[in-house]
Amino acid sequence: MSLVSIIMGSDSDHHIMKEASEVLKEFNIPHEIRIVSAHRTPAYMFDFAQNAEQRGIKVIIAGAGGSAHLPGMVASLTSLPVIGVPIKSPSSIIGIDSLLSIVQMPPGVPVATMAINGAKNAGLFACSILATYSNNLSIKIKEFKKQMEQRIMSANENLNRIEFENYQRNMDKEKNK
Amino acid sequence: MSLVSIIMGSDSDHHIMKEASEVLKEFNIPHEIRIVSAHRTPAYMFDFAQNAEQRGIKVIIAGAGGSAHLPGMVASLTSLPVIGVPIKSPSSIIGIDSLLSIVQMPPGVPVATMAINGAKNAGLFACSILATYSNNLSIKIKEFKKQMEQRIMSANENLNRIEFENYQRNMDKEKNK
Amino acid sequence: MSLVSIIMGSDSDHHIMKEASEVLKEFNIPHEIRIVSAHRTPAYMFDFAQNAEQRGIKVIIAGAGGSAHLPGMVASLTSLPVIGVPIKSPSSIIGIDSLLSIVQMPPGVPVATMAINGAKNAGLFACSILATYSNNLSIKIKEFKKQMEQRIMSANENLNRIEFENYQRNMDKEKNK
Amino acid sequence: MSLVSIIMGSDSDHHIMKEASEVLKEFNIPHEIRIVSAHRTPAYMFDFAQNAEQRGIKVIIAGAGGSAHLPGMVASLTSLPVIGVPIKSPSSIIGIDSLLSIVQMPPGVPVATMAINGAKNAGLFACSILATYSNNLSIKIKEFKKQMEQRIMSANENLNRIEFENYQRNMDKEKNK
Amino acid sequence: MSLVSIIMGSDSDHHIMKEASEVLKEFNIPHEIRIVSAHRTPAYMFDFAQNAEQRGIKVIIAGAGGSAHLPGMVASLTSLPVIGVPIKSPSSIIGIDSLLSIVQMPPGVPVATMAINGAKNAGLFACSILATYSNNLSIKIKEFKKQMEQRIMSANENLNRIEFENYQRNMDKEKNK
Amino acid sequence: MSLVSIIMGSDSDHHIMKEASEVLKEFNIPHEIRIVSAHRTPAYMFDFAQNAEQRGIKVIIAGAGGSAHLPGMVASLTSLPVIGVPIKSPSSIIGIDSLLSIVQMPPGVPVATMAINGAKNAGLFACSILATYSNNLSIKIKEFKKQMEQRIMSANENLNRIEFENYQRNMDKEKNK
Amino acid sequence: MSLVSIIMGSDSDHHIMKEASEVLKEFNIPHEIRIVSAHRTPAYMFDFAQNAEQRGIKVIIAGAGGSAHLPGMVASLTSLPVIGVPIKSPSSIIGIDSLLSIVQMPPGVPVATMAINGAKNAGLFACSILATYSNNLSIKIKEFKKQMEQRIMSANENLNRIEFENYQRNMDKEKNK
Amino acid sequence: MSLVSIIMGSDSDHHIMKEASEVLKEFNIPHEIRIVSAHRTPAYMFDFAQNAEQRGIKVIIAGAGGSAHLPGMVASLTSLPVIGVPIKSPSSIIGIDSLLSIVQMPPGVPVATMAINGAKNAGLFACSILATYSNNLSIKIKEFKKQMEQRIMSANENLNRIEFENYQRNMDKEKNK
Repeated sequence: MSLVSIIMGSDSDHHIMKEASEVLKEFNIPHEIRIVSAHRTPAYMFDFAQNAEQRGIKVIIAGAGGSAHLPGMVASLTSLPVIGVPIKSPSSIIGIDSLLSIVQMPPGVPVATMAINGAKNAGLFACSILATYSNNLSIKIKEFKKQMEQRIMSANENLNRIEFENYQRNMDKEKNK
Repeated sequence: MSLVSIIMGSDSDHHIMKEASEVLKEFNIPHEIRIVSAHRTPAYMFDFAQNAEQRGIKVIIAGAGGSAHLPGMVASLTSLPVIGVPIKSPSSIIGIDSLLSIVQMPPGVPVATMAINGAKNAGLFACSILATYSNNLSIKIKEFKKQMEQRIMSANENLNRIEFENYQRNMDKEKNK
Repeated sequence: MSLVSIIMGSDSDHHIMKEASEVLKEFNIPHEIRIVSAHRTPAYMFDFAQNAEQRGIKVIIAGAGGSAHLPGMVASLTSLPVIGVPIKSPSSIIGIDSLLSIVQMPPGVPVATMAINGAKNAGLFACSILATYSNNLSIKIKEFKKQMEQRIMSANENLNRIEFENYQRNMDKEKNK
Repeated sequence: MSLVSIIMGSDSDHHIMKEASEVLKEFNIPHEIRIVSAHRTPAYMFDFAQNAEQRGIKVIIAGAGGSAHLPGMVASLTSLPVIGVPIKSPSSIIGIDSLLSIVQMPPGVPVATMAINGAKNAGLFACSILATYSNNLSIKIKEFKKQMEQRIMSANENLNRIEFENYQRNMDKEKNK
Repeated sequence: MSLVSIIMGSDSDHHIMKEASEVLKEFNIPHEIRIVSAHRTPAYMFDFAQNAEQRGIKVIIAGAGGSAHLPGMVASLTSLPVIGVPIKSPSSIIGIDSLLSIVQMPPGVPVATMAINGAKNAGLFACSILATYSNNLSIKIKEFKKQMEQRIMSANENLNRIEFENYQRNMDKEKNK
Repeated sequence: MSLVSIIMGSDSDHHIMKEASEVLKEFNIPHEIRIVSAHRTPAYMFDFAQNAEQRGIKVIIAGAGGSAHLPGMVASLTSLPVIGVPIKSPSSIIGIDSLLSIVQMPPGVPVATMAINGAKNAGLFACSILATYSNNLSIKIKEFKKQMEQRIMSANENLNRIEFENYQRNMDKEKNK
Repeated sequence: MSLVSIIMGSDSDHHIMKEASEVLKEFNIPHEIRIVSAHRTPAYMFDFAQNAEQRGIKVIIAGAGGSAHLPGMVASLTSLPVIGVPIKSPSSIIGIDSLLSIVQMPPGVPVATMAINGAKNAGLFACSILATYSNNLSIKIKEFKKQMEQRIMSANENLNRIEFENYQRNMDKEKNK
Repeated sequence: MSLVSIIMGSDSDHHIMKEASEVLKEFNIPHEIRIVSAHRTPAYMFDFAQNAEQRGIKVIIAGAGGSAHLPGMVASLTSLPVIGVPIKSPSSIIGIDSLLSIVQMPPGVPVATMAINGAKNAGLFACSILATYSNNLSIKIKEFKKQMEQRIMSANENLNRIEFENYQRNMDKEKNK
């Protein structure tokens, strides 16, 4: 049974939204992925949003581009937490229209908005919601953060080695002038 | 029986949206006015949008602020023409969020977007839609346009009289220096 | 005799505006397509706008880029409904200049503004205007909407099959580690 | 023991952020409220963020204006879910700087961003997170949503009565002309 | 006979546009001032623009707000230089819509755009155009610039005196602590 | 002797600014072209701006990108009319920074701002300034405008032929189905 | 002898720029304050910028609004570090024009840009530059930072006391219901 | 021992930030380069910022993209001058988010912000800070500025030669027509 449902307005959003799915797989969280269009399948969206909780879904991740109404409309139809991902589609205005359309929700109907194309963070945030009552998951998030830290520390060391070598080479050249 | 339905997301939008109503009254077009919130009354919005045509409504005017989903969602649920009015509410980002949220609709679900706070024009555009098959209404619109023209021409004459007087006074002063 | 007139400021806008034409063909609505530049052929624009109604035109669709004055100027010269399409031309500021120039019309002269490059929706909106008094056309729009819905539902099924297969493959790999 | 911690960059943000507190009180969720400045009390912020989970905090709500670093920095130091509220302070650029600074987080460190000044929704979203494993709370959210719906439906009825009366009065005047 | 014609889209623009008139009076340049609306008096605008040159007008200054088409449309109908002034009217988006609508003209039809509300500079620029062949006027512009310089130099001296006094007073206070 | 001086902040702006030069050649107006950087050659800029009038220059066209100070600084140092061209260089923010930096001049120092990359219009506007006292040049501008009009009218005819053929072909196909 | 020179484009900027002066007084750094307009006193600006270093000035703080050229032009004429303060004057576009005009300097001529109206930070940054070789000043900055920290910590305690009292009062009320 | 420390949020920023390093090499200023992520290595950032001064660092240059918190957070933890470089990374909104996040710092914690991708200027500004008490370095900066000037003057001469030749060729062609 899926705990997280990832939905998107169009299959052209899939190359972005699959990053949410990949994170959830990494954290072993059962999830589903669906195309649900607020504007082209409004009835299906209604059914989906109103039945998600009963099906055992705990968190909904909704990605949409342009005049992105999907996350907000789903949020209006469920009491589950909804995470919104603005998508920079070719027809959007560098993603700003989608961002504003998702984030500027009226009082009473929150959508947890991520960065433009921030599907990976949507997956992570779903994990952190589920981790509020799962010690196991909370530990996994801490490990994930530690790994990120270590990748930066290694990159730092690599960069310094390269920089130092360049510097050396440069100084050698200067001497030989 | 109403031909035009004016809806808005909140009663705080009424001071703007009533301008649409005033225009329709001026053109003697029977209409109704309702508060329908995409986010707070989604089920009512669904019913409203799906039944509007059957009730004899020909055009829907929808005003909304902030993350303005009402016009687009109604457009997705009806085949009637929907006119959208972005409203500069205190919580909106100078109305830009509402404008983009209303106008940037995906292919397949158009919303005829007016200027920010452009409720008067929404009313006029509804008239011009109804006028496509009403010679009577078409003539009224032409008269309305003529009156606008005459108001500008009169303002122009007034301004010139004032300017000329100022100019005269100024020249008199210069001479007396 | 054409019911809809599609005009644009330059032939370089044709690759966008032809989408309006394609929709109208799909709905069997007789229409014409013309290049009318507000800035380079102002006299022709005047004649066009003032004679459109007499020629039997019911709706005008006007596309323009940059400092896009065509839709608003035509709207000032006719009582027909005018639909404006902002075009993201190379010289425009990501289409925002055209959008604002078209949508921010003063009270009295509405232009029904579509999304940036939203020519397809302009065609559809023209249909929905003509459908206000044509049951036939209204049914066709409902069929069009149903087809859109079905395309999304099929895409959804495809996606789920693919996702499920990926998921299976992934789980198999994990087991074999 | 507090389940939610509301923090803000300055006491001048309190008139906005207290709305989060009010919602949490309405839902009977024990919470604390603190001033923690990323830029003026960085050491205190570090301690706060690193110890929040141990103190039993389940969700952090962080509000900040201008170059709003608080939500993102706290998110980098904890595995708890962090909700960010951009605040339109006098020195901010109509809140856009704060919104972008909070929402555009890099992959790996999500912040659940609310609308500009959206502290009430931050409180509600915290509730919906806690409700993922509390049936009780989930029912309260549904009741809250029902009340919102009812308020709109009543407003709608009031508006219609007023509109109808105005309309009547107007028609009476027209007749008496 | 007027050499410069100042036109504006509405009499509500007069409080801004009169600054152009004041400058022209200061430089003793005969000019006229008119309300010409691109959208409400298109026929009058056409006549005005096409006859301006014959009437002896050398430069046209056109101010407009919102979706500001007046300067560009007049420029398309005359070979005279047209100076455009974007006006921050209440319905405009902080003047940005007017600025972009005026400045983003297509190749072939230039409008010399001034700052938002920059009517004074429009007047000055008209003078500098007329000065290209008038030594007299050119000298007056140089005098005008010298006066501006002197006003700043005096303000500078005043400020320094005040600052010095404040500083003295401050140092005295410090000593007496 | 040059009547117009075209200056630009960097030789990388030349591919844009040469369009101004091409227009001036077309109108047989003697002109010069120079690289003058406000930030890298401030002394040369000072000399240039202060001596231009004495050298017989009547109009200055200045193009600049990024933080574009050249047009405004030259305008502060001469009483000649200065035309500014914002250039969308790789380091500029889609040209918006240059546009605002050039157009938002304070009262007293106007710069006639063209569209982003609008060098061609800068050349044309220089012609229209020079034409205020040259009947010959004024006639040439009218011819230029007529040619533009004719190019659009021809494009219109071509488009209609193509559209008509497509339409015919389409209808033939429909019949043969 | 002054170590820091605070300059501004107009005396109307003084109410903002004096905050830089107040910080410098607090740190006992001798400084001067002057009105220097890039556009109205270009020659004075040239002299000022080219002689500042010889007069013993170590850092220049330049504030300007609208099309803010002063900081960049001064930076082009001196090798001293220049700190720029964008000022939100009534004629600027919410300060964005000034910010972009100051910050987007080309390679080779840096301006250290502060927040819109950030004159206080300009003063502090000047101190931190002077502190690079003054242990005394460096200690004072650390003390300043400590005081800021303590002010926040006190505010935090106050807020908690108030919140706690409100909370108590609220709970008492609930009990007594 | 390094006098300047160049830090960046990710190794993908290195291709931009290395320009700061190249300038410092050109001016023979010993410096280091490190990857320090505010969000992924917050503890390392803390240690770095708090120990930089003790290690003899005089100036910190910090580059970051997206929701760019690094420069501001480092500035909050040190009394050294911090120079911020907004980086236009693929996930940023054309660099505007990074620019606003870096520049809009609250009173008390300044960051000297450079242009988007302005790493070269960051290096130069670090030099100008160090030059406040180094006559040697001050002379080098003046030489650097002179070289820039000479490059523009040469480019100017080249351009004029080319332009003149083109002009000649053009006139020859005209004659031979």
